[in-house]
Amino acid sequence: MKKTAQLKRLIHSQDLEFLMEAHNGLSAKIVEEAGFKGIWASGLSISASMGVRDNNEASWTQVLDVLEFMSDATTIPILLDGDTGYGNFNNARRLVKKLEQRQIAGVCIEDKLFPKINSFINGEAQPLADIDEFCGKIKAMKDSQIDEDFIVAARVEAFIAGYGLEEAVKRAEAYRQAGADAILIHSKRSDITEIESFMKEWNGRHPVIIVPTKYYSTPTGRFQEMGVAVVIWANHNLRASIDAMQKISQKIFRDESLVDVEGRVATVEEIFRLQQAEELQAAERKYLPYTKRMQGDRL
Amino acid sequence: MKKTAQLKRLIHSQDLEFLMEAHNGLSAKIVEEAGFKGIWASGLSISASMGVRDNNEASWTQVLDVLEFMSDATTIPILLDGDTGYGNFNNARRLVKKLEQRQIAGVCIEDKLFPKINSFINGEAQPLADIDEFCGKIKAMKDSQIDEDFIVAARVEAFIAGYGLEEAVKRAEAYRQAGADAILIHSKRSDITEIESFMKEWNGRHPVIIVPTKYYSTPTGRFQEMGVAVVIWANHNLRASIDAMQKISQKIFRDESLVDVEGRVATVEEIFRLQQAEELQAAERKYLPYTKRMQGDRL
Amino acid sequence: MKKTAQLKRLIHSQDLEFLMEAHNGLSAKIVEEAGFKGIWASGLSISASMGVRDNNEASWTQVLDVLEFMSDATTIPILLDGDTGYGNFNNARRLVKKLEQRQIAGVCIEDKLFPKINSFINGEAQPLADIDEFCGKIKAMKDSQIDEDFIVAARVEAFIAGYGLEEAVKRAEAYRQAGADAILIHSKRSDITEIESFMKEWNGRHPVIIVPTKYYSTPTGRFQEMGVAVVIWANHNLRASIDAMQKISQKIFRDESLVDVEGRVATVEEIFRLQQAEELQAAERKYLPYTKRMQGDRL
Amino acid sequence: MKKTAQLKRLIHSQDLEFLMEAHNGLSAKIVEEAGFKGIWASGLSISASMGVRDNNEASWTQVLDVLEFMSDATTIPILLDGDTGYGNFNNARRLVKKLEQRQIAGVCIEDKLFPKINSFINGEAQPLADIDEFCGKIKAMKDSQIDEDFIVAARVEAFIAGYGLEEAVKRAEAYRQAGADAILIHSKRSDITEIESFMKEWNGRHPVIIVPTKYYSTPTGRFQEMGVAVVIWANHNLRASIDAMQKISQKIFRDESLVDVEGRVATVEEIFRLQQAEELQAAERKYLPYTKRMQGDRL
Repeated sequence: MKKTAQLKRLIHSQDLEFLMEAHNGLSAKIVEEAGFKGIWASGLSISASMGVRDNNEASWTQVLDVLEFMSDATTIPILLDGDTGYGNFNNARRLVKKLEQRQIAGVCIEDKLFPKINSFINGEAQPLADIDEFCGKIKAMKDSQIDEDFIVAARVEAFIAGYGLEEAVKRAEAYRQAGADAILIHSKRSDITEIESFMKEWNGRHPVIIVPTKYYSTPTGRFQEMGVAVVIWANHNLRASIDAMQKISQKIFRDESLVDVEGRVATVEEIFRLQQAEELQAAERKYLPYTKRMQGDRL
Repeated sequence: MKKTAQLKRLIHSQDLEFLMEAHNGLSAKIVEEAGFKGIWASGLSISASMGVRDNNEASWTQVLDVLEFMSDATTIPILLDGDTGYGNFNNARRLVKKLEQRQIAGVCIEDKLFPKINSFINGEAQPLADIDEFCGKIKAMKDSQIDEDFIVAARVEAFIAGYGLEEAVKRAEAYRQAGADAILIHSKRSDITEIESFMKEWNGRHPVIIVPTKYYSTPTGRFQEMGVAVVIWANHNLRASIDAMQKISQKIFRDESLVDVEGRVATVEEIFRLQQAEELQAAERKYLPYTKRMQGDRL
Repeated sequence: MKKTAQLKRLIHSQDLEFLMEAHNGLSAKIVEEAGFKGIWASGLSISASMGVRDNNEASWTQVLDVLEFMSDATTIPILLDGDTGYGNFNNARRLVKKLEQRQIAGVCIEDKLFPKINSFINGEAQPLADIDEFCGKIKAMKDSQIDEDFIVAARVEAFIAGYGLEEAVKRAEAYRQAGADAILIHSKRSDITEIESFMKEWNGRHPVIIVPTKYYSTPTGRFQEMGVAVVIWANHNLRASIDAMQKISQKIFRDESLVDVEGRVATVEEIFRLQQAEELQAAERKYLPYTKRMQGDRL
Repeated sequence: MKKTAQLKRLIHSQDLEFLMEAHNGLSAKIVEEAGFKGIWASGLSISASMGVRDNNEASWTQVLDVLEFMSDATTIPILLDGDTGYGNFNNARRLVKKLEQRQIAGVCIEDKLFPKINSFINGEAQPLADIDEFCGKIKAMKDSQIDEDFIVAARVEAFIAGYGLEEAVKRAEAYRQAGADAILIHSKRSDITEIESFMKEWNGRHPVIIVPTKYYSTPTGRFQEMGVAVVIWANHNLRASIDAMQKISQKIFRDESLVDVEGRVATVEEIFRLQQAEELQAAERKYLPYTKRMQGDRL
């Protein structure tokens, strides 16, 4: 099944579904192998892995290059955390074209301004996009897609910016009417009062996606009861890798030795397996003359 | 001190020095923070993190883009694992120019053919480069560098390809005379017999770099006794991150919850710290008008 | 009609068909507007326009970026002059995947070695690829394409390298049997004796493409009589632009004035027309709120 | 002399100096060969050559890649037409870092909003940047440069946006005090009344750059009398190449022959010369073993 159709099915599934964060081809592959049905290409994680900030310091085409590697390495759909669409409606509709070329299944844009600031930094002071303009952006994106199953999700930052339920619902409804395929409602509270109030008022008019990074202690069953369609685990592969790399770097620096490291990290063979080295060796047997293989299988 | 001068000093240091692998801006920063004096930009790790194979599947400019992020995120020198120089002498000398522009301190090229195969895959069958041609490549690179401290290291794959000590020393000597700043002697044995025999015969004519991925159990003091200049821990950040991401992805997939994950991974605030979010907030206070900051510090 | 199907139809057309060179989005658009049914993305022209040599100095992904702009700017098919496939069979099959993602209709690879040298420079001294290996490369490419209409053409450099008819036909036949969709037979003679002898011996077993850069004085009707399928005008947009830019730069430098220049070059409005500025203005009316348009139609 | 110092000298020269537009490595080289002392990397020309619009459709890193080729192909300084700095002060200061790495001598930013619109399209409706914010951007850029000679020019769009002399001078003065190295005052009138009034009021407090695309008929001596420092011929290489490519494409399409084309366009040898093919052949003699040269001078 096409990746776009896979993602559409996830969003409309009766069951609660999950997307897991990845930030490069390797982590995307690991997410797929773990069993997940979809990938969240996190803007925070991608920027952090590059060593830059989540403020559009990397250009949108640099992000696109990462996405292309992620898409090539996997068969499950990827939903891009597309910031504000990287500019106005014209930038956003160009983005759709570029994503479709790379078999990215969908993109989620948020109602903030370019360049963006991460929602968990100084959120109240962040202005929201003009509703009409944001709706125009959604329309332009939906009008641009070639594959009818491509997903455009609209992320409502009203709670993040300090507004209440009314503003959140007003925006979500406007975005729905503008053509968004799903609403991502974001909250940075450690409890689910905002999310709960939204879900109750929203009353199932359209699929809802949530990102429980801050309210992680809520039992997942509760999300299902509230009618959430998709839960995103938004940055945990990055955070696990940071922790692991800091510890191993510190240990090797201190020990000046690998003796206690081997066995605690993946093997070199596991790297080769993840890279599908075997497929290449099989292909060499198929496509390279015998004498060339004996010379190292190359020109 | 310039990054090139830092790397040169490491190579000529009386003490045994260490380079730690990194494969993107984030891991480079972690290596620096751990205390290391230099970074090994591993071809295997960079390709694996992208989700492709270590066979020049990523183009050399895609690797360059990763290096630029790594260099921008750190102040310690980076030595690039530059495969074969990505083609002939002309490609290799262009590479030097591009690396210098990005403040990469040096590059190590290996005496194999393009496209390369990882040394730990089917090594015996891999042909070595013609000695004269490889020496011409080294000369072209040294003639191209603008900064006199830029480092070109030559990696001898003779042991990997099944040749003996004589071939290894012959090649190392030829590369030294061609202008290489250091010799990287590689072995895939789990003991150090090859390395030991080389170091004895070599007898200190030029700095030697080793990569004890396979003979990791050798006590590090032994390397110092043998006269090794630099030890490279070649892929352990990648391997630690693979292990961590596989475990966390599997756990979250199984648990459908983050409850047992928080506290076991780096915090979101730690991501912001690594990205230097605070520097940007300070810069906003300096460069943005007050009213703009109140609107979210942006246009 | 899909671009691939358009190109396939051209190659199998009863009439003699023509491809015109382009080297960026702008020249591609100009080729389309002139009435041509297809575009030749020349390796020589693309490299020259970048200011580098036709020896794989630009990476294959840098070429790919140019192709993406060319494809996005046009609706007619593009056949890429793909050098040797930028490496071995594995690089070549990855190239096919990347081209298909960007809606490039086909690629022509030549039986030389990486890094390539332009056919008109010191051609006799250039070695040809091993036939079996080149056939393996063609097979790998054909096996990789997803769209069954994607074209892989094989360029025979036997005449260029100083071999005779027998070698040329032997190679062409081997490539045909390996799955190539067409044969490009190249000659640098100023007459068509080589091409004629080949066409006679070949006797229509498969579509043939020619590039009459050197034997340009041959009447085009002669090509049709010989049974040629497609003629490529390989570098004339680039050469026209070089001539024009040299003259205008010299004139403006000398005159220190534009007085005699206006009227002799395209207008600024013509640039806007080629960029489709009007489409954007119409889209702004559709997607931007009135107040935003009054502010410049932007965020 | 460093490229930055060359550009600084031009701006402070007693004589009227000229920058000529280029949009890729090839045109940059042609500008240098024509005798010009500096290059204007036009945003309009670069976007148009890619086949996209001058509205930040190409990402800033895609523009950067073009600049890198331009800089590598030439020895004279390049002043980038840097739109608005591609975002806020943070994007603009990152741009400075990236430009310095590529030996670009300076950048001119304009007081409009992201994404930009070309000054000659619907200019009156375009809002100007907040003065304080734009000054903060200039300060951030000047504080970021490592090379003290790197140039930041500030382009005043007040006349373009329909404001009068007072606003233009107020802005120019504010930008000067914020640290701009030069003021670019832009006008789209076909006469020089706006420019003249500005120059008189400005009275030489700081170097002024002009772009007489619309008021081209003004004798150049007049600019010198008014005290202009630098004149930019902003898009004429692109416009000459459009005209030439349209004519040659139309002619070849119509003629289905090259007979009348040869002799009217640059030769293939001229392409090779511009690419410095000879330098590579000399380098091959220096760096490649004899036997390899006989095999085509390659691996």
